[in-house]
Amino acid sequence: MSRPRVLFALRDPALLPDLFDDAALARLRAVADVADRVLVPTGEAGAGGGDGGHGDPDLATADVLVTGWGAPLLDEAFLRRAPRLRAVVHTAGTVKSFVTPAVWDRGVRVSTAAEANARPVAEYTLAMVLLSGKRVLESATAYGRDRTLRGGGPPSPLGNNGLTVGVIGASRTGRQVLGLLAPFDLEPLLYDPLVDSVAARTLGSIAVGLDELLSRSDVVTVHAPSLPETYRMIGARELALMRDATTLVNTARGQLVDTEALTREVVAGRLRAVLDVTDPEPLPRDHPLFEAPGALLTPHVAGSLGNELRRLGASAVGEVERLAAGEDLLHEVLPGQLSTTA
Amino acid sequence: MSRPRVLFALRDPALLPDLFDDAALARLRAVADVADRVLVPTGEAGAGGGDGGHGDPDLATADVLVTGWGAPLLDEAFLRRAPRLRAVVHTAGTVKSFVTPAVWDRGVRVSTAAEANARPVAEYTLAMVLLSGKRVLESATAYGRDRTLRGGGPPSPLGNNGLTVGVIGASRTGRQVLGLLAPFDLEPLLYDPLVDSVAARTLGSIAVGLDELLSRSDVVTVHAPSLPETYRMIGARELALMRDATTLVNTARGQLVDTEALTREVVAGRLRAVLDVTDPEPLPRDHPLFEAPGALLTPHVAGSLGNELRRLGASAVGEVERLAAGEDLLHEVLPGQLSTTA
Repeated sequence: MSRPRVLFALRDPALLPDLFDDAALARLRAVADVADRVLVPTGEAGAGGGDGGHGDPDLATADVLVTGWGAPLLDEAFLRRAPRLRAVVHTAGTVKSFVTPAVWDRGVRVSTAAEANARPVAEYTLAMVLLSGKRVLESATAYGRDRTLRGGGPPSPLGNNGLTVGVIGASRTGRQVLGLLAPFDLEPLLYDPLVDSVAARTLGSIAVGLDELLSRSDVVTVHAPSLPETYRMIGARELALMRDATTLVNTARGQLVDTEALTREVVAGRLRAVLDVTDPEPLPRDHPLFEAPGALLTPHVAGSLGNELRRLGASAVGEVERLAAGEDLLHEVLPGQLSTTA
Repeated sequence: MSRPRVLFALRDPALLPDLFDDAALARLRAVADVADRVLVPTGEAGAGGGDGGHGDPDLATADVLVTGWGAPLLDEAFLRRAPRLRAVVHTAGTVKSFVTPAVWDRGVRVSTAAEANARPVAEYTLAMVLLSGKRVLESATAYGRDRTLRGGGPPSPLGNNGLTVGVIGASRTGRQVLGLLAPFDLEPLLYDPLVDSVAARTLGSIAVGLDELLSRSDVVTVHAPSLPETYRMIGARELALMRDATTLVNTARGQLVDTEALTREVVAGRLRAVLDVTDPEPLPRDHPLFEAPGALLTPHVAGSLGNELRRLGASAVGEVERLAAGEDLLHEVLPGQLSTTA
């Protein structure tokens, strides 16, 4: 595919400068012809071009669709209007919301920036693990309230020397979290039904069952994909297995955790929670987690924001470079992976 | 010094089990004879033994003093009662508060656990750098207030891709911070008057002057020793060099920063601050930093706490093992270092 024709397709073209800085665009233009116009979906399935279903010359000649948040639904109707399409290169994580089986049926290859998007999530997680183990934010709250250096004091266990960190899911984010945990005196456990003990060890962790992970960890962090079989995988039974004062970190998807069961444990002061995602999201304005001392709620910010979008664009440019050079995609998504990944 | 006689000397013997777990004590007893009694200072200079100045048989026969917070003042009067003393192995950071020139004059060697104590400080700093770059805690505050996912939104620059982190001081903590920053897409600058550009590069950073560091960094973190010449090294002039919305992290000593000058910048909303130490400490109850949205105050918790004390004990045991084996100390403190280190 020498000098592929590239068409951007996403709902908010204003994001493009955040995704692709001048250096990235220069790299892209060095190997591809980039359409000036951006394909902005209208929201109607199959009418992605906003052209009322009529022919779109850019789409008709596109070899590669570089998609972003709010990409058009790539169904049969859409693909008929993109007869030359050979690859969909996504600048965000999951492609499930817009890639249909018709894409692969036509031999169109699909790539994701999920690996790049996992980076800031793993960084957020590392920071929260370190602060949770040390009870730093509770200490800040107590200091602001009592205005003395040693007020009531935080609960034990305290400190980041030898704490057990339970990682649920060897997803891209879960693996990156394990990598970032490596320099610290922490003991990572890993639960992933698809990862055996040898593979877990190469990731710097010890493979355990979910119940063992929950009962042994000082901090539990969830990085499983949101799938029918992972819906509320952390429910009342699983939370009850966690020891007193254990912290649950969720940066993955709110649906993985039974919010109300977790709320009961946190409001009772038995468990602690750092939640970047919840179900529902946002929480209702009067939700008790907003006021619970043991909860830190952040508004879905762990993923790529601000300058972190550039990583997504750079990842996509790398994929287009590989396509132009006839090389394999580095981050190809195969249809068989959809049932086990985010 | 085969099988040295070891005497513990610190104000609060109740800390000993936190510093030395069973494994550490077993290692210590394998190479040394450990006095059952702990030397608890009375607070009077030279009367460290609490024995009214009379002979203390344990002190009289001690080869190694293992000291902790609240160690006795090791002056001439004290040392006369410890004629066999060959080494002082401290289980905390600075030895300046209790080691006098008389110690080195007598050829007694001094060791510190400052390297082990720097670890949790570096970890706290890394977590705060990552959260500051992403404005995570501001987002949490906004979410708790507005209860919407995207309220006013945090100020730019935002995100941890390519931010510049200014490290002031290549102290033990400063070096460990630089080491921990290495895996991230951050650009570390280093200011240390005693470190040249080649040495800075081996530490993973670029050497710059203090003014350049302040004007270029998105996050500035202070790890300089508290010395007469570093007193309020970050004053009104230096703060004015920092760009809008830059975060100042101080985990070192409050005296390094002009608290009132910083308060003016933070209360005005121009700068942000994460302060584990302040001058004075604690701050007065009505200090405006407690209420400033851009400030996060923690009550001097970045250093070793809880299970992190075990690292200090293990560091000391390692030193006693080396003494017993006739090896060099790994963490020896030489008198010439006191004027440039904490």
